[in-house]
This record gives sequence, structure tokens and C-alpha cells, in this order.
Amino acid sequence: MRTLYVIGIGAGDPEQLTLQAIKAMNRTDVFFLVDKGATKSELVDIRRQMLADHVRDKDYRVVEIPDPPRDRAAAAYESAVTDWHHRRAGVFSEAINRELGDEGVGAFLVWGDPALYDSTLRIFDLMLAAKSVEFEYEVIPGITSIQALTAKHRIPMNRIGESIHITTGRHLAEGLPAGVDNAIIMLDGSCTFTQVPGDDVDVYWGGNVGTPDEVLIAGSLRSVEHEIEVQRAELKERAGWVMDTYLLRRRKD
Amino acid sequence: MRTLYVIGIGAGDPEQLTLQAIKAMNRTDVFFLVDKGATKSELVDIRRQMLADHVRDKDYRVVEIPDPPRDRAAAAYESAVTDWHHRRAGVFSEAINRELGDEGVGAFLVWGDPALYDSTLRIFDLMLAAKSVEFEYEVIPGITSIQALTAKHRIPMNRIGESIHITTGRHLAEGLPAGVDNAIIMLDGSCTFTQVPGDDVDVYWGGNVGTPDEVLIAGSLRSVEHEIEVQRAELKERAGWVMDTYLLRRRKD
Ligand SMILES: C[S@@+](CC[C@H](N)C(=O)[O-])C[C@H]1O[C@@H](n2cnc3c(N)ncnc32)[C@H](O)[C@@H]1O
Ligand SMILES: C[S@@+](CC[C@H](N)C(=O)[O-])C[C@H]1O[C@@H](n2cnc3c(N)ncnc32)[C@H](O)[C@@H]1O
Repeated sequence: MRTLYVIGIGAGDPEQLTLQAIKAMNRTDVFFLVDKGATKSELVDIRRQMLADHVRDKDYRVVEIPDPPRDRAAAAYESAVTDWHHRRAGVFSEAINRELGDEGVGAFLVWGDPALYDSTLRIFDLMLAAKSVEFEYEVIPGITSIQALTAKHRIPMNRIGESIHITTGRHLAEGLPAGVDNAIIMLDGSCTFTQVPGDDVDVYWGGNVGTPDEVLIAGSLRSVEHEIEVQRAELKERAGWVMDTYLLRRRKD
Repeated sequence: MRTLYVIGIGAGDPEQLTLQAIKAMNRTDVFFLVDKGATKSELVDIRRQMLADHVRDKDYRVVEIPDPPRDRAAAAYESAVTDWHHRRAGVFSEAINRELGDEGVGAFLVWGDPALYDSTLRIFDLMLAAKSVEFEYEVIPGITSIQALTAKHRIPMNRIGESIHITTGRHLAEGLPAGVDNAIIMLDGSCTFTQVPGDDVDVYWGGNVGTPDEVLIAGSLRSVEHEIEVQRAELKERAGWVMDTYLLRRRKD
């Protein structure tokens, strides 16, 4: 049976690859890299470099799959994303059927961990439901950008016994649920932390964590929020892209 | 300056070690293993085996630190834990001062990721605040039990755009915050999922994930909750210890 691996590769630092990820890479015939256009090409280059550095046991091919365009202007966020996932499932099935024989082994290299704000597993479910292509598959976890962030700040996600809430910039704009004292925000393109009220919140922020351009800022939210905005814009200018994650923690007493 | 590494080692599967973790291990003179008594000795053995398998560049020593007893019967959970952390900080400082010279490199091998429900970083802060020992330190992330769980079930933590709430059995017993549709529960010694109301909840459960004894169960919570209780008890009997994590997801429409 045709086999696919969904491999988490960490969120920027190539040393965060696991032994399990490297073993799976060394069993793979065809790597499918999703090409998200020019600005994201560095993210494809990082993957190609990982393969060059770690695949020793096998000849492999790299197939770039162009990402279908996504309607970012659509009013209904969820249905726009669902529609885009269906188109992705079509493009992925087509590439797998074309490039991989019945006994072939393919792999998708996923940024961070495949379980955290990534669509690959959902697209696999759609492909299998549509019966557009047949395969078995295995998922290999990777270090997330959250873990890269907290490790660099040398902080735990939670204080003793507390809960941890992981959410998006979009949800943060609507306010956090009552009782949340540790919030980790991802997918925030517009510095939504500036809209969080209160003088009792600390922030631990990181942009392009694990890459040579990494920027880390921590402090009381009200004292450093402006500095984060400035440094984030500079980072985007310098690196050509920016991905940032941050932890907000409400101080006690 | 004396250096310490806090190294995340994954949550059971030795192949989840990262390259970064292995490099740090190969720079370490003394590994401090916290000995939690007889029932947990397998967890010490897993660490010793990792060192035997991966340390090639260096002679190293292993020092076992006996864990100070913790008052599990105390009424005030948080202050009992804080008290225990202070005693741990004392024992750790003493061991570091005794075993590691000014230029020495030590390491603590932390289960899963050091940022997730682990006290090592907090104890480091206490040691530094007390000035009982001097050192620099670096934190190296590891695959968490959550990621091991979701990878084996091949599920994302969140559906499109949704938030993720990570909490403890203790908090789950008090009820989840309003609006939480994806909850991940850790540190639950008493199958608290049986107290979660509703017929619209799915569960993805795993015990001793990544170890040879791993058990995985998924389904509608009401249909499988009893099976999980039974299998959890059998697993504990068979393996001598049980650690389990689960994701609860509210179905839509
Ligand atoms: C589509 S999500 C993918 C998350 C990924 N699966 C993970 O496990 O980290 C992209 C978001 O991840 C975060 N992110 C990814 N890489 C990052 C990095 N190197 N530094 C900071 N944040 C990062 C940002 O919040 C970004 O908006
Ligand atoms: C003190 S916390 C440590 C968590 C760890 N730092 C991590 O990143 O997973 C212990 C809890 O982790 C979870 N856990 C650890 N190892 C596990 C495993 N192999 N399978 C399932 N759950 C596990 C259980 O919920 C357990 O109660």
C-alpha cells in the first residue's frame, strides 16, 4: 500500500528535528512541498536544506505543489477556508496519484507540529472521504512555535496548576474567556495585543523564533507593546516575512 | 561560568528526541536525575538508556537526586506544591554545588517539554532568587504528551480557527470555561471525563503513549468512557504506572 508521512519539522530551527522525523525522511521517495509563492520561498528553502542535510539512505524527489489561491477578502472566514481546503485536497490528490506508485512512500513536511493550526491533516481527511486517492498515513509530531518561544524565554506556559489557553489574533480581538490567565496567541497579523485591556498583563513575544533573524521581547504589556510593533515591522522588512507568537500572562495580586 | 541545560526528552518514545537535545547531552558532564521512588524507576531507566544510546563525544556521570516528599493530603494544593518546590530547590542547589565545578556543564532531563506542567523551570527561578547556587542555563524544548497523543490519533488539536484549552483533571472537575470546544486534559488521576456532561462530546484518549504499553481509545465520550476506565486500570496493572492525556471535543450541529 502507498504510504504517506505527515512530518512535523519544527518552527524554524533545523536542530529541532526529531530522530523520528529524520527516520521517516530516510524512507521517503517523494517529498511534496507546498509552494506558497515568492515571499514564502525561504520556507521552502529551509525544507530543501533539511533534506540535503539529513537524507542519507535514499534517492528522493521533491515535487512542488502550487497552493490554490485563497479568498482572503471573503466575509465568511470559515467557509472561505473550507472552500480553499477542498481545492487543496483536489490538487494534493492529483499530485499523489501522478507522482507516487502503489508501493511508493511520500511525505509532507509541516511547519511546527501538524496538530497545531495546520490544514494538512484536514486535507488528508477530505482526500480520504472523497476517495480521490488511496493511501495509508502516519503523523510525526514536531516542536511547535509555542515551545520554541517558551524555551527561548525560559518560561513555563502555566504557573502552578493553571490552565493554558491557545488562540488566534482573531479570537483575541473578541476578548478572552473569563478566568483565562495564560493565553498564547498565534496567527495574529495585526498586533492585537494592543487591544488587550489592563495594566496587570505581562507579554512574552517572539518573531521568527529559531531563525537567524529571531527577535524576543518580554515585559509588562503596556510598557513594551509599542516596541513590539516597531520591532515586528523592522523584522518583516529585514527578513522578508514575519511569523510571531506570544504568551500573555495576568500577574497575580 | 557553570552551565545547566534543561532538556525536554519527549513523553515516552525515545525517537522523539531532537537533534538539539542530543547535542546538549553530548556537551554535558553531569546528568541530574530526580529519583521519584520505586514505581517511577522505569522513567529513570528510560533516561539512562537515552544517554547510553546517544552520548558519544563525552564521559559523563549520572547523579540521582532523591525527590523530597510532597504533602499530597494538604488541603491547600498550591501552597503544598510551593512548599515542595522550595524543598526541591534546596536539594537541587546542594547537588549542583557538590557535583559541578565552576566550568562544569550539567543537565536535567525533563519528561515531554519543560514548559508544560513541569516544575524544573520554577525551581531554577527559586534557586537563582535564593542565590544558593550560580549558573547560566538554556532550555531545550521536547515533544509533549499532547503532541504524542494527537499524532497517534492523527487529529489536529483544533478545528478551523478554534481555540485550544489545556487544563488539569482538577480544573475539569470544576467545569470548563464557557465557549471551550477543544479541551486537552492532563494530570488527571481519577477519570474526571466521566463527570463531563453532554452527549455531544468526542474523546481521544491515550495512556502511556509512545511506550511499548501504549493504549489509544477514541469515540463518543458516553460510549467509550467506561472502556477507558477499564483499560486505564489494566494498563496501570500491566506497566506498573500510568500517565494519560485526552482531548475532549464538542461536536458541531
Ligand atoms: C499556520 S500556523 C502554523 C503553526 C505550526 N503548525 C506550529 O506548530 O507552530 C502559523 C503561525 O505559527 C506561528 N509561528 C510559526 N513559526 C513561528 C516562528 N518561527 N516564530 C514565531 N511564531 C511562529 C505564528 O503565530 C504564525 O502565525
Ligand atoms: C507532570 S505532567 C508533565 C507533562 C510533560 N512535561 C509533557 O510535556 O507532556 C504529567 C502528565 O503528562 C501526561 N503524560 C506524560 N507522559 C504521558 C504519556 N506517555 N502518555 C500520556 N500522557 C502522558 C499525563 O497527563 C501526566 O499526568
